[in-house]
Amino acid sequence: MAKNVLFGTLEKIGDLNGALMEGVRVRQQRLAKPKGALGRLEVLSVQLAGITGDMQPPLSPRSVIVCAADHGVAEENVSAYPAEVTRQMVLNLLDGGAAVNVLARQFGARVILVDVGVNATLPQHQQLYDCKIRKGTNNMLYEPAMERDEALTAVEIGIEIANAEIASGSRLLITGDIGIGNTTSSAAITSLLTGLAAQEVTGPGSGLGLSGWRRKCEVVEKSLALQNPNPIDPLDILCKIGGLEIAAITGVILAAAAARLPVLIDGFVSAASAIIASLFASQSKLYMIAGTCSSEPGHSILLNILDLNPLLTLDLQIGEGAGALLAIPLLEAAVNTLNEMTTSEEAQISMNATKEAAAAPL
Amino acid sequence: MAKNVLFGTLEKIGDLNGALMEGVRVRQQRLAKPKGALGRLEVLSVQLAGITGDMQPPLSPRSVIVCAADHGVAEENVSAYPAEVTRQMVLNLLDGGAAVNVLARQFGARVILVDVGVNATLPQHQQLYDCKIRKGTNNMLYEPAMERDEALTAVEIGIEIANAEIASGSRLLITGDIGIGNTTSSAAITSLLTGLAAQEVTGPGSGLGLSGWRRKCEVVEKSLALQNPNPIDPLDILCKIGGLEIAAITGVILAAAAARLPVLIDGFVSAASAIIASLFASQSKLYMIAGTCSSEPGHSILLNILDLNPLLTLDLQIGEGAGALLAIPLLEAAVNTLNEMTTSEEAQISMNATKEAAAAPL
Repeated sequence: MAKNVLFGTLEKIGDLNGALMEGVRVRQQRLAKPKGALGRLEVLSVQLAGITGDMQPPLSPRSVIVCAADHGVAEENVSAYPAEVTRQMVLNLLDGGAAVNVLARQFGARVILVDVGVNATLPQHQQLYDCKIRKGTNNMLYEPAMERDEALTAVEIGIEIANAEIASGSRLLITGDIGIGNTTSSAAITSLLTGLAAQEVTGPGSGLGLSGWRRKCEVVEKSLALQNPNPIDPLDILCKIGGLEIAAITGVILAAAAARLPVLIDGFVSAASAIIASLFASQSKLYMIAGTCSSEPGHSILLNILDLNPLLTLDLQIGEGAGALLAIPLLEAAVNTLNEMTTSEEAQISMNATKEAAAAPL
Repeated sequence: MAKNVLFGTLEKIGDLNGALMEGVRVRQQRLAKPKGALGRLEVLSVQLAGITGDMQPPLSPRSVIVCAADHGVAEENVSAYPAEVTRQMVLNLLDGGAAVNVLARQFGARVILVDVGVNATLPQHQQLYDCKIRKGTNNMLYEPAMERDEALTAVEIGIEIANAEIASGSRLLITGDIGIGNTTSSAAITSLLTGLAAQEVTGPGSGLGLSGWRRKCEVVEKSLALQNPNPIDPLDILCKIGGLEIAAITGVILAAAAARLPVLIDGFVSAASAIIASLFASQSKLYMIAGTCSSEPGHSILLNILDLNPLLTLDLQIGEGAGALLAIPLLEAAVNTLNEMTTSEEAQISMNATKEAAAAPL
């Protein structure tokens, strides 16, 4: 893989189509409804037009790209589940029985699984891209998670897989993650980039008890102190306290932005990838849509920094892309209402608010 | 219409199927995911099974029943739009150009419009049920909105229309409203039932300015003082400060509960109907699902009292059933994940959390 894949991608990430966004805002005001009555659907319709340059962007075909890898830090008992569950979850996904499969069927998305670092030999499968860089990261409590070059390779794998999906027609990308230990890595990234204490950004992940949570916080704190990543160098962050799947998801997000396609960000781990993507290219934020916000404390903190307002808050703690898939109908509703509703003129509705009533905005 | 329609309906409203709900909870714990990882989808799957007595309830065909009527109080300039907009919105809906039409097409719901009191003669239309009781209510600032018998008739019309939809196959009902002035009535109902001041429960509706909002609050306060409805008599509330469409939506909700079907509650006006329904039959609450919560201050207050947690908060200010329709995919996702995911045993996943890690819940 040529090492200019990342930089070529970053160069392509630019501003949204401001003129079309203004056109959408004007149309929204003409539709047969009170001004702003469709709330966040209107905001979404503006963003989607700005991203794609199309007032009626196709949002299908679409792909949920689930990146999977193991984490050396899992040996510190920072997860409610043992590390071998990564492999088991991957196999269940390939068998079609995971939450992401069920929801991808419901919402008409193609599921692909990218193995960038699962600590097991996986069977060949049509939906599986075998891009294993190494069998999981090192334990960041003692050494950097990986080499800088490995982190770069993982990002570029994410880019290339996303580009292949886009080339085969995908018009909406959805991120997903599988990897026991990855909320520990995501918490460390969050603590580093916010300056907040480990206790403020670390959650129970997939169901840790109190003593486990305390240990996880300690691991986050000590790993950060030892690795001391440079907070303005995204590759340094990824290689010291990141994960292979976190790096690959970062690549997926950057590729979507470079292709001027929307990317639905899933859970806490995807949000950690998103913030890394924003360090590579600040404008990549404009192409992100936060599907969901979990109760993992670091998640809402990251979304705030990214200036992303999650569409759903359903207390999901699942990853895999499941939460982001649930938001797809809202994107479609935003596009449909913008394009299919009649205007006040067409409907002959007196949508000019009575002057006195609307005199001063509340 | 026989006057025992309402009482016959109330008699049929009973408890949820507790045994099946327990069965669903057990199955959720066996699915290949951390305990509780699907958050509110799990809660929904339990409720839907409890309502229908079916772990895999069909949620289609489905109907959004939009009830429309005018409000005498609209002459007090309590809305950003003049009263004739009710008729215009109804015609736009019948033409297929309203937000609810667009979303009903997207989500596969049948739209029907029930005219219980629009102050205009409407054309015949396949989707329109002409059940006009009177051409709008009286101005509650000066006299009761309607007669007690008229309120009862409106509730019973809602019941009968809902029963007809159910008889023709509908397995999920969605409420909707059209009626200039109806958030004023809803605010009065909210103030009455919570004891909160008009200023705390009254919002800008479809876009009132500050001076209009002050007038609206004053109208709410004075109407309540003059009409002094009995807060434990739902028909007294409806006839004194309610609306014909609010009464009809109350009937729709009661009919769904009596038929053991879920009913998706739309915006602030539907929530006002829902609280009236709960006064008729407290257990009707168990059959309600709050699709959305708007930024109207009274809306979240009512949902709180009803113990309903809205699925979406998208800053909608639209009514019509549009917000509730957006929540349909979440109901389907709840049913699909429950029924289609593999169990941990089937997937051979070590979903027994490591004992130490999960020792104490966080």
